[in-house]
Amino acid sequence: MNQSLGRASICLEKPVYILNSASVVGTKEGEGPLGPLFDMVGEDDMFGCNTWEEAESNLQKDAVYLALGKTGLKPADISFIFAGDLLGQSIATSFGIATYEIPLLGVYGACSTCGESMTVGAMAIAGGFAERVLCVTSSHFASAEKEFRFPLEYGNQRPLSSTWTVTGSGAFVLSDTTVISKTIAEANGQPDKARTQARAKITGMTVGKIVDFGLKDSMNMGACMAPSAASTLEQHFIDFGSQPCDYDRIITGDLGSVGQKVLIDLLREKGYDISAQHMDCGIEIFDAESQDTHAGGSGCGCSAVTLSAYILKQLEEGVWKKVLFMPTGALLSKTSFNEGQSVPGISHALILESIREK
Amino acid sequence: MNQSLGRASICLEKPVYILNSASVVGTKEGEGPLGPLFDMVGEDDMFGCNTWEEAESNLQKDAVYLALGKTGLKPADISFIFAGDLLGQSIATSFGIATYEIPLLGVYGACSTCGESMTVGAMAIAGGFAERVLCVTSSHFASAEKEFRFPLEYGNQRPLSSTWTVTGSGAFVLSDTTVISKTIAEANGQPDKARTQARAKITGMTVGKIVDFGLKDSMNMGACMAPSAASTLEQHFIDFGSQPCDYDRIITGDLGSVGQKVLIDLLREKGYDISAQHMDCGIEIFDAESQDTHAGGSGCGCSAVTLSAYILKQLEEGVWKKVLFMPTGALLSKTSFNEGQSVPGISHALILESIREK
Repeated sequence: MNQSLGRASICLEKPVYILNSASVVGTKEGEGPLGPLFDMVGEDDMFGCNTWEEAESNLQKDAVYLALGKTGLKPADISFIFAGDLLGQSIATSFGIATYEIPLLGVYGACSTCGESMTVGAMAIAGGFAERVLCVTSSHFASAEKEFRFPLEYGNQRPLSSTWTVTGSGAFVLSDTTVISKTIAEANGQPDKARTQARAKITGMTVGKIVDFGLKDSMNMGACMAPSAASTLEQHFIDFGSQPCDYDRIITGDLGSVGQKVLIDLLREKGYDISAQHMDCGIEIFDAESQDTHAGGSGCGCSAVTLSAYILKQLEEGVWKKVLFMPTGALLSKTSFNEGQSVPGISHALILESIREK
Repeated sequence: MNQSLGRASICLEKPVYILNSASVVGTKEGEGPLGPLFDMVGEDDMFGCNTWEEAESNLQKDAVYLALGKTGLKPADISFIFAGDLLGQSIATSFGIATYEIPLLGVYGACSTCGESMTVGAMAIAGGFAERVLCVTSSHFASAEKEFRFPLEYGNQRPLSSTWTVTGSGAFVLSDTTVISKTIAEANGQPDKARTQARAKITGMTVGKIVDFGLKDSMNMGACMAPSAASTLEQHFIDFGSQPCDYDRIITGDLGSVGQKVLIDLLREKGYDISAQHMDCGIEIFDAESQDTHAGGSGCGCSAVTLSAYILKQLEEGVWKKVLFMPTGALLSKTSFNEGQSVPGISHALILESIREK
């Protein structure tokens, strides 16, 4: 039996495997510190499309295509796709993945969507409802600025607390087994793929709740989201009876340098010191100095592409044995912002472990 | 074991129970044919709030409050809440249910969201990840018109194919048992609630894929969504080896009178005649003649409040033994519409059965 720990956490009886994954990013991300690790870097941020939104759809389409290609699976081998993005009514998803004709369960958790999609995806597999599912999410700097803040043409000045939305998409194939069956691999004309081991395994997760500290600054999302990250992390430590030192890294999605400080301080007040283990995808993905990104990267794509390109690589190579991956989301829209509402946060955590033999 | 039927369908080994539910609607819905059945009808559509969006958030808050009240459960007795709405970045949900502090998994399926939330919610319970979850969704006529079409103040003329977005929210408590345990009921000071039987049970579901026939008319959503309803229904009949006559009713969410015709025609071409069983929540909820709603009601709230107030009542009383409940969603945003994109559809189906002893 899968075990509920408290009400927010789940300890999987049998791990769910991340069979393979793919990352597609824009030019700026390709020029950043993780640049060489991404599967595909766009030559320009339009990706051959006519609009920013269409370009973002294309990112999802490409990420899914590459992830399927690496596993040797076809769309028909996938039961469900869990997908979402930042745009109103998730249109990057709706127009990005339709061609695959995979039954879709749309998710929304702002920039925590990568974590949410993998949480629900892992439930679908561990619950016995599917053998393989896909999880995909994306963001695009230009479509996000248009959706949430100012037209790019306006050229507004960005405060130092602001983050830079990552142009990128990450797709993940989750499976109940570490390799795909020989039958499927042969049927798909790729018999060698039956020997490709999964990249890592998911062994548990903690689902976050909405945490609202009343902050209203959409140019300081790190501070808006940090309280939710602190809440989910504390709940996680309590539910699993674990300590920060049990993880090689505790990895948030896109708190950036401002949010990181707030998170570490908030957790210290709760009696946990995560300063030695904490890492933030938003801080890793850009060189803040030379790339002028201020507090760091953000967006659904930020944690998704960093997971695929960097975190899973470290787990695969056994550099890290166990990490806590926790994408963070800021729950706002331009309407809620214009109506003077606060920016609540939400964060979902997954325990990812290496499957490399010691 | 839960059984996968094909890749899109799930046959639950042990049913998931709809312990109880609640519906909250606006004035116009209260004046419609189902008016007397709703739990709460607002005196005006602002529900004491300052903005339409806040009013919609309030609908969700009230629906959850009433549903919990009927079951005698407290927010802390619920593991996860699966919620979403039509607004950009699901803000009705973000600002509606935060106060309950229940771990949130946000879902987006346009007007199919009620079906999606119950599908994923049922997976969480049947997979052994939770004993009780909440599913809630909403829509609001004024916030939806603002989000998708024209400002109300503009007073545009509505074509006869258009539907009227329902102002309403439906909340559902799903559970792994037909009654809540005596221990919980007594701890919550409501011992009598331990004798309240569930309203119905979920025994299977079929997850839909995106279906795009290239239609671009956001004033004729019924026609845009009907192909997806036909696709999910055909898949459902194939996967479960069932026929239209196996269900007392086959109930779509908000196709309205135009979409209904298209659906029945499309399924006839596939060899299924559902004309005797078909019912549409959008057609039931308003009196098209006297209420000037044209093709019918629509929105996430349409199928949700009709399920809670009317469909579950029929199952509870044993008038119907088994129905297929299939909310339908149109995947558009004002941005995708303005950029000339089509309006794809998605529909998710759930088998709901009466638990009344024969």
